[in-house]
Amino acid sequence: MPTLPSRQDTIAACSTPQGSGALSVIRVSGQKTLDVCGALLRGKWPPVPRHAATRKIFDADGEIDEAVAVFYKAPASYTGEDTVEISCHGSAYITARTLNAALAVGARLAQPGEFTLRAYLNGRMDLSQAEGVAELIAAETAAEHMAALGMAGGELSGRIKKSVKAPLVELLAQLEVRLDDQDEDILELDGASALKTLASVKAQIAAMLATFASGQLIKNGVRVALVGAPNAGKSSLLNSLLGYGRAIVSPAPGTTRDTIEEAVEIQGSKFLLTDTAGLREHTLDPAEEEGMRRTRAALERCNVAIFLLDGSRPADKCDGLVWKELQGRNCRIIPVINKSDAGGDHDYPFPARPLRVSCKTGSGMKELKEALLRETGEKGSCVLTSARHYECLRAALDETEKAEAILSANRPPLELAAEHVRAALGALAALAGETAPDDVLDVIFSKFCVGK
Amino acid sequence: MPTLPSRQDTIAACSTPQGSGALSVIRVSGQKTLDVCGALLRGKWPPVPRHAATRKIFDADGEIDEAVAVFYKAPASYTGEDTVEISCHGSAYITARTLNAALAVGARLAQPGEFTLRAYLNGRMDLSQAEGVAELIAAETAAEHMAALGMAGGELSGRIKKSVKAPLVELLAQLEVRLDDQDEDILELDGASALKTLASVKAQIAAMLATFASGQLIKNGVRVALVGAPNAGKSSLLNSLLGYGRAIVSPAPGTTRDTIEEAVEIQGSKFLLTDTAGLREHTLDPAEEEGMRRTRAALERCNVAIFLLDGSRPADKCDGLVWKELQGRNCRIIPVINKSDAGGDHDYPFPARPLRVSCKTGSGMKELKEALLRETGEKGSCVLTSARHYECLRAALDETEKAEAILSANRPPLELAAEHVRAALGALAALAGETAPDDVLDVIFSKFCVGK
Repeated sequence: MPTLPSRQDTIAACSTPQGSGALSVIRVSGQKTLDVCGALLRGKWPPVPRHAATRKIFDADGEIDEAVAVFYKAPASYTGEDTVEISCHGSAYITARTLNAALAVGARLAQPGEFTLRAYLNGRMDLSQAEGVAELIAAETAAEHMAALGMAGGELSGRIKKSVKAPLVELLAQLEVRLDDQDEDILELDGASALKTLASVKAQIAAMLATFASGQLIKNGVRVALVGAPNAGKSSLLNSLLGYGRAIVSPAPGTTRDTIEEAVEIQGSKFLLTDTAGLREHTLDPAEEEGMRRTRAALERCNVAIFLLDGSRPADKCDGLVWKELQGRNCRIIPVINKSDAGGDHDYPFPARPLRVSCKTGSGMKELKEALLRETGEKGSCVLTSARHYECLRAALDETEKAEAILSANRPPLELAAEHVRAALGALAALAGETAPDDVLDVIFSKFCVGK
Repeated sequence: MPTLPSRQDTIAACSTPQGSGALSVIRVSGQKTLDVCGALLRGKWPPVPRHAATRKIFDADGEIDEAVAVFYKAPASYTGEDTVEISCHGSAYITARTLNAALAVGARLAQPGEFTLRAYLNGRMDLSQAEGVAELIAAETAAEHMAALGMAGGELSGRIKKSVKAPLVELLAQLEVRLDDQDEDILELDGASALKTLASVKAQIAAMLATFASGQLIKNGVRVALVGAPNAGKSSLLNSLLGYGRAIVSPAPGTTRDTIEEAVEIQGSKFLLTDTAGLREHTLDPAEEEGMRRTRAALERCNVAIFLLDGSRPADKCDGLVWKELQGRNCRIIPVINKSDAGGDHDYPFPARPLRVSCKTGSGMKELKEALLRETGEKGSCVLTSARHYECLRAALDETEKAEAILSANRPPLELAAEHVRAALGALAALAGETAPDDVLDVIFSKFCVGK
């Protein structure tokens, strides 16, 4: 069982990215912040809270830099403790020397996420918000950013509190008053009303759980496999979607052997495109055979398969083979006819209404991107992206269902129903981090960057 | 001739290093700063100057982040203009979107060094101080940092102003009053006093010019070539000085063929160590011959040559050959006997008092480092590191000498002397950037990072 770092220490770290730039920010937080920074900075100390004060930084060897220091007085700071942010010139030398100077006068180097851990431990945010902060920093697309912002800003926790926790707490109170007190004055439990509450809570949780599939697509990206007969133009389509020549393209069939995977953002959503080797019935080349095996593996994993047909010729046996491969798989299929510029108007016996594109002229690419965007699922600030949150809500749903089953019976055992409502609330408390063992915290905060 | 970017624009840039971290800072400066940032940030606007205000950032697509904004009111800001620094979460996505939002409401992307260019143009610092800011960010060692701090902080400019410019201005006034006014009341020029002033000015400039050699060593590092007979242990010594196994070491002579160059900091000073191929009289191997040619080239360039001898054997012909190679070169020679652990107490006919080291046990390394440190030259906050400053001071010295020569004559032509004093002052004005053509500024500021 890991031990969390001591909250008594005053911690320091560089909060800006590594490297050279105009500015770096050194953050110091904890009980001795004013002592530590007072020893580093020359001039009136402490400055007025939240006043950006110009101060020279010194260590035992002399002047380091002229900087701007801002003092955030507890509890009105990110961590809830006295905090100072020192903004100095962004050289690795100055940053390291300033940080070392802080360590030399009593601070300890902060662990990854330790400032946010303290914010959580000091009640400045709940655990799911703290997790949102890490996701906010990691977010690469508009969709990820929106979900992370909802999490960090407390929108998700707020919704859970209001529409799930509050009604369960109210119901538990009604159950408990009837367990504790045998007073005749208390009316019998209104079973219908209790069941209505549980049904509403269930629906709310289920709605949130249902967003998790979208949340996974937002966070991990939509996996798109480009499949088709040799020479249908899969690599050209990959390059067109990426906007640069990632894959080698040649008129010879079978140019792509290994799968090529690239991430691309399309209108704020992340996609992982996999270019695959063309599928055909027979090959004697072991490399081509291995390529085809990998194509099938990519089909197994993908969320969407773009089934690419060569518009310059009618469908042939190979296309039929690919179509057969696609059947019964767990992915959406987008049929696309390539080389629409070179096209005769051939008929294809397989899917209805294929899109027509030309990688050469770019025609149809807009429509294809729109079709891909329809596969990204729900977006928004209350989309579940965290597996931990999913598990907690899933447990809360289970317990709610059990309570409902008990209360549905004639003359239900209220004590048992209360037990399950308590367990459901326990799962919500774990989600918010009201109860969180040290090892859970350790896993969550060790994923943070240093300085946050 | 380049045109400097317009000072009328309001400029914006990310001032923290690229990458992912807890914090990024977006800096906005110019006449429309308050309008631009008011459009981005929700809440009372503008905040009290220098108050760190928590504000949400919005663009047309919605909320971006919660940030801290500090308003620096003109002229009390880095640039001398209204400036706002927005400290947001340090993700590439949030940083880019916030910056784009600023550009969308009227700011222009700042060019490299443009904030500092404005600081200079608005009289917040002179040109040599602005150059010091760039050097401060680039400084990698304590010695570089100290010189850059003296430059950026105005210590160097202050010294030039006080001990060079002020006496020349005073002298020029005395010369000019005698040229303009033929009034009989004015006494004749006190020639002895004028010559004393010029002598003192010359000495001051010469002292500063003399630090330039040290400044070059500070900025570029001291070039140290490790030379010796094959198998003397040059690569082992390189690794010992670096503190890690950079070069391949083997008991076979001639393991190192190409020169290997690595930078290392020793007690705050930069050294560029070059491991070389061992020198011997004859080789039939063309690769070895090329290696020896490169060894000689390294000797040509170096400031210091460590002449390494193998302490496990008496000196031989090869050592004699190396010794001969070192003669008449423009570098200091530090003779070092390696393998002192394996050593018999052999005599070496060449240099007096060699150091004895053992790469195996580490003995003598401290003394060797001390010997290297004695080659780093002068350190301090008034060491000249800039070739531009050197050229300006050199020109000022020339003109001062000419003025001195004229005034030494009997009944000197005061007009001509005044001309040279004026030219000396012109060189100092160029140094401080009081007169600086746009192309000079363009060269200086384009070396900056963006955001400074």
